[in-house]
Amino acid sequence: MAKEITNRNDDYSQWYLDIVRKANLAENSAVRGCMVIKPYGFGIWEKMQAQLDKMFKETGHTNAYFPLFIPKSFLSKEAEHVEGFAKECAVVTHHRLMNDPNGKGVVVDPTAKLEEELIVRPTSETIIWNTYKDWIKSYRDLPLLINQWANVVRWELRTRPFIRTAEFLWQEGHTAHATSAEAVEETKMILNLYAKFAEEYMAMPVIKGVKTANERFAGAIDTYTIEALMQDGKALQAGTSHFLGQNFAKAFDVKYQNENQKEEYVWATSWGVSTRLMGGLIMTHSDDEGLVVPPKLAPLQVVIVPIPKTDAVIDEAAEKIIKALKSKGISVKYDTDNKKRPGFKFGEYEMRGIPVRLGIGKRDLEKNQVEVARRDLKSKESVSMDGIENHIENLLEEIQKSIFNKALAFRDERITSVDSMDDFKNVLETKGGFVSAHWDGTTETEVKIKELTKATIRCIPIDNKLEDGVCILTGKPSKQRVLFAKAY
Amino acid sequence: MAKEITNRNDDYSQWYLDIVRKANLAENSAVRGCMVIKPYGFGIWEKMQAQLDKMFKETGHTNAYFPLFIPKSFLSKEAEHVEGFAKECAVVTHHRLMNDPNGKGVVVDPTAKLEEELIVRPTSETIIWNTYKDWIKSYRDLPLLINQWANVVRWELRTRPFIRTAEFLWQEGHTAHATSAEAVEETKMILNLYAKFAEEYMAMPVIKGVKTANERFAGAIDTYTIEALMQDGKALQAGTSHFLGQNFAKAFDVKYQNENQKEEYVWATSWGVSTRLMGGLIMTHSDDEGLVVPPKLAPLQVVIVPIPKTDAVIDEAAEKIIKALKSKGISVKYDTDNKKRPGFKFGEYEMRGIPVRLGIGKRDLEKNQVEVARRDLKSKESVSMDGIENHIENLLEEIQKSIFNKALAFRDERITSVDSMDDFKNVLETKGGFVSAHWDGTTETEVKIKELTKATIRCIPIDNKLEDGVCILTGKPSKQRVLFAKAY
Repeated sequence: MAKEITNRNDDYSQWYLDIVRKANLAENSAVRGCMVIKPYGFGIWEKMQAQLDKMFKETGHTNAYFPLFIPKSFLSKEAEHVEGFAKECAVVTHHRLMNDPNGKGVVVDPTAKLEEELIVRPTSETIIWNTYKDWIKSYRDLPLLINQWANVVRWELRTRPFIRTAEFLWQEGHTAHATSAEAVEETKMILNLYAKFAEEYMAMPVIKGVKTANERFAGAIDTYTIEALMQDGKALQAGTSHFLGQNFAKAFDVKYQNENQKEEYVWATSWGVSTRLMGGLIMTHSDDEGLVVPPKLAPLQVVIVPIPKTDAVIDEAAEKIIKALKSKGISVKYDTDNKKRPGFKFGEYEMRGIPVRLGIGKRDLEKNQVEVARRDLKSKESVSMDGIENHIENLLEEIQKSIFNKALAFRDERITSVDSMDDFKNVLETKGGFVSAHWDGTTETEVKIKELTKATIRCIPIDNKLEDGVCILTGKPSKQRVLFAKAY
Repeated sequence: MAKEITNRNDDYSQWYLDIVRKANLAENSAVRGCMVIKPYGFGIWEKMQAQLDKMFKETGHTNAYFPLFIPKSFLSKEAEHVEGFAKECAVVTHHRLMNDPNGKGVVVDPTAKLEEELIVRPTSETIIWNTYKDWIKSYRDLPLLINQWANVVRWELRTRPFIRTAEFLWQEGHTAHATSAEAVEETKMILNLYAKFAEEYMAMPVIKGVKTANERFAGAIDTYTIEALMQDGKALQAGTSHFLGQNFAKAFDVKYQNENQKEEYVWATSWGVSTRLMGGLIMTHSDDEGLVVPPKLAPLQVVIVPIPKTDAVIDEAAEKIIKALKSKGISVKYDTDNKKRPGFKFGEYEMRGIPVRLGIGKRDLEKNQVEVARRDLKSKESVSMDGIENHIENLLEEIQKSIFNKALAFRDERITSVDSMDDFKNVLETKGGFVSAHWDGTTETEVKIKELTKATIRCIPIDNKLEDGVCILTGKPSKQRVLFAKAY
C-alpha cells in the first residue's frame, strides 16, 4: 500500500518529503521557504501546543503577545545577538503600494518609505526586553514568567518542511529574575519540561545537555538543549533553553530595586520549541508505509473500517464501539465511504499514521469479534466486542510506550565511544548517530572537526561523567567526553 | 477606588485608554500602531479563542496555517481586493542587514533586494486561493472548510488599542463550495455563530445585517456583519462574514469537476473576528471603577480576600471554598498578600473586573458566613458557607445574564426611527446610537450623509421589515429602513 513513498534506505531525504506530502502534513507555498501547514499536520501541532501550553501554565507562566516587528535599531543593542540574526531577516521598508504608472499591477510607493526599517521578528528578546524595562521596577515585579506563541521569520537559504523554514511557528518563553541562581534554575526546569514533553508525548527520546560556546544562542551565557536522533543517524536539536545572564537587561537598561533598595540588573532566560518538532516526530517513528503518530498526539486515534462496506449490522456495532470509545475520551472515526475498498482505506490510514484501525465484518461479528490492527507494528488480532474500549485504551498506551522504547533502543545503539579520529570518522560514515569523544574544549578544534567530518558537538550531556582523556584531534588533555553528530 | 480612571462622561476616549492601561490589558509598543497584549488581556483573548475554536470545529471546520507573506503580484489578481488593501500594507523588500560601513549599527544590505516584494498579509484570501487551486479538483474535495488563527497587518494611520491597530490577531475562515447556495448558507451560518458568541459569551448584544455595497469587504459579493453599540452611542463592527461568489476562484483559476464531469468555478466565503472584540467587550460593560468581564470569559472568576489578613481560621475557610469552587470548574484565587490592605485589593480587583469577590473575616465566619460582592452591581451580601459553591455558580450565571440584559436595554433604547434629516442629525448629536431611516439605496446618498453627519450605514438588518418610505436626504422612494450610526 506504500503508494509513491520512497524507501527510507534508498533516499532518506526524499522519504521524508514524501511522508510530509502524502500524509497531508504540509506543502511548499508560493513564497520561497515558507510552507503551508495542512489541516492534518496542523491538527498534530495543535495537540502539541495544547500539551505544552498546559505544562507552561502549570509551572507558573502566562501567555502574552508582542509585536511582529522589531525596529532595526533594537537588534543592534546586544552585540552578539545582531551578529547572529542580521544576515537572515526579512526587512520591511515601506508601508504602501500604488498603481504602477506603467499600468502593470501595483508597485511600492516610494513616498511611503519608513523612517526606520522594521525587522520581522526572528526571535523577540529585543522587543520584549524593551517592554520589560517599563514592567520591572522592584523585586516585587519578579520573577516575570511570560510565554508567547508566535510566528517568526529567519531567511534560511536551504529549507526543508518543518525542519527549517523561513517562517515557522513556535513558542518563546522570556523570563526575568532577581538572581542568577533563579534564572539558571528556570532554564533547567524548562529543559526538563521539554525533555518530558518529547519523551512522554512525542515518544521521542532526547539527550539533555549544554551547548558549547560555538553553538550557543546569540546573546546567551549558556544554551541548554534537547537532542534527538533521527532514523538516518543524524541528530536533531529539538528545543533550547537559554540562560541569558544580564546581557539583555544591560542592553535595554532593565534594573530592579532589591529588598535593600539597591538597583540591580535583572537576570534573564529565554526558551523555545517550534514546528521543527513536527519534523522530529515524523522522522522518529515513521516507516516505509507512511507516518506513525504517537497516540497521545494523534488528532484521530482510532478509525473503524466496515468490511467490505456499511451495513445495518456493521453500523450498529460501529456505533456501539464509537460510544464506548468516546466515553473513554478516545477520538474515533467511522469511515462510511462505500466508494473506496477496505484495502485502499487501510493504505490511506497507514499513510496518515492513525494508531489503531478496527475492521468490522459480518463474519467476525457473528463471533462477537472485531479485527484490531496497530499501525506501529502492522500486526492484527481478533478482539471480543465485550469491553473493547478497555482493550483499545490499553493498546493505545502500549503503542505509546512501545514506539518510545523502539526509538530509545535505536538511539542507545547509536551512541558510540571512540578514542581516535579514525574511529570517529569511521563510526560517522558507517553507523552514524552520536559519537562520544574527548575534545580539548576549544572552538578552534570544534570547527576543525566540523570541517573534516561535518559533525558538530551536539552537547555536553547534563551530569556528564568526568574522566581523563585526550582530544581526538589535538591530543591535548580533556576532562570529559562530549557528544558529536551530524545534524539537521 | 477609581484611581486615575477618567470618568466616562468627561472623556469617553480617555476612559477607554485608562481602562486598557490600568486593568493591564494592553499597551502601546515601540513600533508605531502595534500593541503589546499583556498577560491579563491575553488571558481574556485566550478564553475567546478557545470558545470560538470549539464552535468552528463543531461546525465542521479545521485549522491550518498559511504563509505570513503574500507575493505582491497576488494582491493584484482580484481588482477590488488590491484597491482595498494596497494603500495600507507593510512591504518586505530585503532579506538581509549588514554592518553600517560608517560603523553605526546595521543597515539594509542593498545586495539583498527581493526580486518580488512580499506583503505582510492584511488578510489571506489571495495566498489561500492560490493554494486551493491545487487542493480542489473534484466535487469530492468540496466543501473545504478551513480556519486560520493568525496575525495580520494593516498600516492604519489612526490607531487605538484593540479597536484599530497596525498588527492584530484574528481568525480568518476561508471556505470553498460547489454551489452558490451552499456558500451563502455557510456565510449566514457563521454570521449566526458570531452573533451567538457575542451575545452568549461576551454578553454583548449585536444586530445582524448586510452591509451596503459601499461598506463591503474588498472582493466580496455580500458582506454580513454583527454590529454592537458602545456606551458612547457609537457602533462597533464586531465581526464580518463574506460571500465572495466566484471572484477569487476566477482570479486564481480554481475549478472543480462536478458530478457530471463538467468544470465549474468554485464558490467562496471568508469570515473573521479579531482582537477588536476585546475593545467591544471593554466598552460594552465597563464602568468608572474599571473593567467588567463577563463570567464566561473571565480568566479569574472569583477572588477571595482575607479580612483584614491571612490567619489559620480564615485560611481554612478559604481552602474549603476553593476546593468546592474548583469542583464546579470555577476559577478562583486566594489573595494572601498581607502587605496590601483589603480596601486596596478591592480596588485592584474591581479595576480588573473579577466578577465575584469573597471577603472572609473572622466575625462573619463565626456566623458561618462570608461576604459576597458582585463586580457588575457593586452590591454585597452575606452568604452562608454551606453550599456556597452552588450560590456562586448561580451568581456567575446571573451576572452573565444581567450584564447582557443591561447592555441590551441600553442598546434597544438607542435605536431611533427618524423620517427627516433634521431629526436624523438631532438624534445623532444628542442621543447617539442607531438611527433607523429610509435611504434611496445609492452609494452617492450614503456618502453624502456621511459627509454631513459622520454617520455610516452600519447594516441592513437581516429579516428587515419592508415598508414604503422616502429617503431622508433625497426624498426618493425607499422600500425599507436601514441602520445608521457613527462608528469606530
